[in-house]
Amino acid sequence: MKSSSRKPVLAVPGRATSYDVARVAKVSQSAVSRCFKPGASVSSKMRARVMKAAEELGYRPNAIARSLITRRSNMVAVVISQQTHRYFPELLDELSRGFSARGIRVLLFTLEKESDIDVVLEQILQYQVDGVVEAARLSGEQVDMLEKRGVPFVFLNRSLRDRPVNAVCCDQAEGARWLVNRLVEAGHRSFGIVSGPADSVVSAERTQGALERLGELGIRQVAVVPGNYSYESGAAGLRLLESKLGRVPEAVICANDVMALGCMDAARHDLRLGVPADLSVVGFDGVGPARWKSYDLTTVQQPVRRMAEAAVSMIVERIEDPTLPPEKRTFSGILTHGSSARLRKP
Amino acid sequence: MKSSSRKPVLAVPGRATSYDVARVAKVSQSAVSRCFKPGASVSSKMRARVMKAAEELGYRPNAIARSLITRRSNMVAVVISQQTHRYFPELLDELSRGFSARGIRVLLFTLEKESDIDVVLEQILQYQVDGVVEAARLSGEQVDMLEKRGVPFVFLNRSLRDRPVNAVCCDQAEGARWLVNRLVEAGHRSFGIVSGPADSVVSAERTQGALERLGELGIRQVAVVPGNYSYESGAAGLRLLESKLGRVPEAVICANDVMALGCMDAARHDLRLGVPADLSVVGFDGVGPARWKSYDLTTVQQPVRRMAEAAVSMIVERIEDPTLPPEKRTFSGILTHGSSARLRKP
Repeated sequence: MKSSSRKPVLAVPGRATSYDVARVAKVSQSAVSRCFKPGASVSSKMRARVMKAAEELGYRPNAIARSLITRRSNMVAVVISQQTHRYFPELLDELSRGFSARGIRVLLFTLEKESDIDVVLEQILQYQVDGVVEAARLSGEQVDMLEKRGVPFVFLNRSLRDRPVNAVCCDQAEGARWLVNRLVEAGHRSFGIVSGPADSVVSAERTQGALERLGELGIRQVAVVPGNYSYESGAAGLRLLESKLGRVPEAVICANDVMALGCMDAARHDLRLGVPADLSVVGFDGVGPARWKSYDLTTVQQPVRRMAEAAVSMIVERIEDPTLPPEKRTFSGILTHGSSARLRKP
Repeated sequence: MKSSSRKPVLAVPGRATSYDVARVAKVSQSAVSRCFKPGASVSSKMRARVMKAAEELGYRPNAIARSLITRRSNMVAVVISQQTHRYFPELLDELSRGFSARGIRVLLFTLEKESDIDVVLEQILQYQVDGVVEAARLSGEQVDMLEKRGVPFVFLNRSLRDRPVNAVCCDQAEGARWLVNRLVEAGHRSFGIVSGPADSVVSAERTQGALERLGELGIRQVAVVPGNYSYESGAAGLRLLESKLGRVPEAVICANDVMALGCMDAARHDLRLGVPADLSVVGFDGVGPARWKSYDLTTVQQPVRRMAEAAVSMIVERIEDPTLPPEKRTFSGILTHGSSARLRKP
């Protein structure tokens, strides 16, 4: 290992500081600083001497040390549940792309469950991130902590009812109502709903939106069963609905796409039913596999790139100017007609 | 906004330092430090006074400032291509889970292409991460930069031929050879291969492994066409193979699962062929959708949780003891028999 030969020079092998460089170059630490500060005045002889020592020691100016002076870390925390990440990887992709384009890095916090935020909030604050994108549940007290620290944050697909916060959302209820309208117009009269994890805000909004609209339209045969966003829970959901209603419903609304794909496969392969001949299945998200030819799912697509860009720019604006008032941006989902649902009268 | 009322007290609203707390509590800064250092001696009266001021100002000890003293940031960079993340999200999930369990955060670097590492390497070094997990291409000079800085790094599913580096790999060539052996034993005599992106190390190893074994077994009818890991490129790959060979091959080997699913759908829905009656399709990775009933793909599953845990512990050991010699851990993939390939003689 090369590091052993450098031990006499460096306190910690490989982690040279500006003081180490100064000692080796036989100049002051402030001279080293100037050499690495864009636009600072320094003689070419001095620069050559410092650069030679820096090269020798593998020194690089320390973004973290700089962050103590600027009070900017150029890091943003992204908090996301494992389920959301696993079944909707597009979201983190687009956030990472958006922040990278602005020279900001993503410090990733994945939660086993949405409601596990307690565990990581203290850590998020300790890392002195410049902002937080929250795709997880946060209580009022937790929002207090962030606000007290002046760390700008944006909720993604969730909000708080009783206080102004920054949020970027897809209109889950609107999307769910659309789906119900189209299915009822096409003549469906019995409905099953497979919801997501109990602590998922997004699932609650979608499920509630669908139930409300079904109620308004006077549809009485409705059953709701729990899922957990996974393919397997969508397949199991269909069987639960069958036993709850006494028969397979005419239409199944799943709280995300991946469960809808599981439900379609259970209908076709386990129950030998035609989709959409015997039942219609719809989802929500617009993930890649929903477009695959084996599924061709009718769904509501979240405009994920636009949503991520909105979240990124809302955070960046508030890092620049923390006095900006809270803002909420709501995007309509895009109704995507696939062949998994019958959307015309038979 | 609450922050305005605090302006006279804090230089930067919401980002209280230990000096701010000291001023408000009317104690020395070192007293504040002691109050937040586990095990340090401090009177209960002093602690109460400091904690009251800290609470009032929203002060929290600064993990970043601490990192300048310990020279540990408790952050590890994970570098991954967008394709790998999109089509194999399990990998980042497991890495994030493993590092979190050890109190280490993941600083995420997603690359548009595997070979885009140049753009981010300088940044990785500036953030003073304690280690790097590389699922992207790195040149010898780039490895020099990391070694010079003494930052431990582990390659994931790649290595360097001519120098010792830490690496955790799934044995891609072995897995590909297994697939070829099984397909040839079952009587397949014409083969198509759909490769991944040109700069993907993993794709190159899988493709090369399959080609070599086919050559050893004397199979002459073999065509290779390029894909990019996406579903669509798997579907297009089948048509390219058909035109290159003059007919659809008896077996198609895809460099990842998602392309294999696209290939299966193109065979069934576009060409009206039976899978595996008319052609066998196999993939590599073991992603969730490969197990879905519409596909039930024959594939080689990467033991991703074990691989991620190996990478995490190799990094953590080397943060503790940088003199540990380089190590390579290779895991065999798990051959998963699905119904997408005929693995017995007809």
